[in-house]
Amino acid sequence: MLATMLYGPRDVRYEDVPEPEILKPTDAIIRLSATCICGSDLWPFRGLNDVSAPMAMGHEYCGIVEEVGSEVTSVRPGQFVVGSFCLSDNTCPHCRFGFQSSCEQREFMTGAQAPLARVPLADGTLVATAELPPDDLIPSLLAVSDVLGTGWYAADAAHVQPGTTVVVVGDGAVGLMGVLAAKQMGAERIIAMSRHKTRQDLALEFGATDIVSERGEAGVARIKQLTKGVGAESVLECVGTQESMSQAIECARPGGSVGFVGVPHGVQLDGQSLFFAQKSLFGGPAPVRRFLPHLMDLVLERKIEPGKVFDLTLPLADVAEGYRAMDERRAIKTLLRV
Amino acid sequence: MLATMLYGPRDVRYEDVPEPEILKPTDAIIRLSATCICGSDLWPFRGLNDVSAPMAMGHEYCGIVEEVGSEVTSVRPGQFVVGSFCLSDNTCPHCRFGFQSSCEQREFMTGAQAPLARVPLADGTLVATAELPPDDLIPSLLAVSDVLGTGWYAADAAHVQPGTTVVVVGDGAVGLMGVLAAKQMGAERIIAMSRHKTRQDLALEFGATDIVSERGEAGVARIKQLTKGVGAESVLECVGTQESMSQAIECARPGGSVGFVGVPHGVQLDGQSLFFAQKSLFGGPAPVRRFLPHLMDLVLERKIEPGKVFDLTLPLADVAEGYRAMDERRAIKTLLRV
Repeated sequence: MLATMLYGPRDVRYEDVPEPEILKPTDAIIRLSATCICGSDLWPFRGLNDVSAPMAMGHEYCGIVEEVGSEVTSVRPGQFVVGSFCLSDNTCPHCRFGFQSSCEQREFMTGAQAPLARVPLADGTLVATAELPPDDLIPSLLAVSDVLGTGWYAADAAHVQPGTTVVVVGDGAVGLMGVLAAKQMGAERIIAMSRHKTRQDLALEFGATDIVSERGEAGVARIKQLTKGVGAESVLECVGTQESMSQAIECARPGGSVGFVGVPHGVQLDGQSLFFAQKSLFGGPAPVRRFLPHLMDLVLERKIEPGKVFDLTLPLADVAEGYRAMDERRAIKTLLRV
Repeated sequence: MLATMLYGPRDVRYEDVPEPEILKPTDAIIRLSATCICGSDLWPFRGLNDVSAPMAMGHEYCGIVEEVGSEVTSVRPGQFVVGSFCLSDNTCPHCRFGFQSSCEQREFMTGAQAPLARVPLADGTLVATAELPPDDLIPSLLAVSDVLGTGWYAADAAHVQPGTTVVVVGDGAVGLMGVLAAKQMGAERIIAMSRHKTRQDLALEFGATDIVSERGEAGVARIKQLTKGVGAESVLECVGTQESMSQAIECARPGGSVGFVGVPHGVQLDGQSLFFAQKSLFGGPAPVRRFLPHLMDLVLERKIEPGKVFDLTLPLADVAEGYRAMDERRAIKTLLRV
């Protein structure tokens, strides 16, 4: 089959690879209904993460089960499933504690920018729908797999409560999903920090009440101004740079919480500054599996439409152009038709 | 009057100073019933914090109100009061959010190792008892002012819940109070990390169920062994060094929480490590004022006896010996009779 491989910086190839097979009795093979490109795929694409060997790209997925290993009991061929980008057994102590992204058997999904993909730990990773969903819901169901689940976790880790003020740092797809999550969790005021018109518009559509286009110190000053000098109860850090993390911490009120889901690159935190700032910090890879059933229900009941975050749709064969469009910020997030 | 001044490293003097006076209409003057030496007093005593001018030492206090400023309404002369080491107005947004230690008007108490002390922001800082407490409760009421309030906050910030496992890093007075707090909050298993017999014994008396004498990597390995490889839901970091902070983070389970109350000295945290560790970090100067009424009630009802943490009692005139005894770890915490 033809699938997506990354050979090195900016070298994405759509090329012939062997079809995936059941390697372990806990595996499943799924036929992708759609797939997409993640902001985190841009780190190796930009050469910021090492690529020592060709990498099978893609970790966001939903589709129809083709085949299951002999030990798989919770899904069967023909069912529509969504899975988390973190593969988990969903039975170990960390999974049972709600942190499937720290599963004792954790692996990260790969190879989903393809027509077929192997999903290890299928029982602990995949959630099936009762019936096949209508086509128009596929983008939103795909979004649950990572980008929405991650934005949701940012809001969860930042302890978003009804009636509170939330700041979202980062207007990428995850940040926009963080806005949607904060809205669903009942936040009264949701301030999206964004300087791009299309992203601002989408943030407003997802529930943002205010837009702040300033960054850094000016951005923090604006947040303070909007909150009568107090700061926000919850801040969602959805970038992962030193600047964005500092900005997030400074936007929170004393006693407030920062949920950080942007994988930190070169971020250092001074213990004493964090102490006197008196702000809670909690993040990590999102335990999407915990949220999957709830988020899939919200999509199936048409209460949320996270699929709107895809502003570019391409055939899978044009995956390299999808990477370039996101790299050059011409697209927020690229959906790939399989 | 004679009071305690620090002139420089190891230079504590008990010397004649002017009696405190009402300087602002929101001040109170109290006559100390007892006072004590804090672990944090040892930082400047050891020369680890700068002492540029002679410092009036002492920030833990309880006693009888002598005089109040014209605007003070909540306490009156003759009442017994306990106050927080953080002075707060208890009306600003941060105070109302429960973080009086980040009060917009925050000051830190000084000059309490003396017969009389000035307490600024008296209305927002002091809590009076209904009647004068019996003498034998004075040490425990004094402990509420900082050391118990701080240990309590560590447990609060680490989200201690009934039935969970808690690790306490640090066997100083604050760590021992953290053990007591975790016990009161219903923790099922409380593992105190301590290598000193007298402190181990006190930890067990306060509610520890296990003692781990190893430190660093060996300590973490022992905690993992005791928790079937999982780690603890809550870890209380009560030291403030790089080693103790790393140890605390590693002892927590993924999704678990570290409450840190040891003022960090030279502690640096790597953002990416913290991300993949997936542990919540929350600390700062304790908002003791939030906890004061509840903790004073627990003492007055004789449900807790935090005053047991004082294992050396000296007359105030011997304050310098009190510092030396704590510095040389001959004493856990020194109570000073006024």
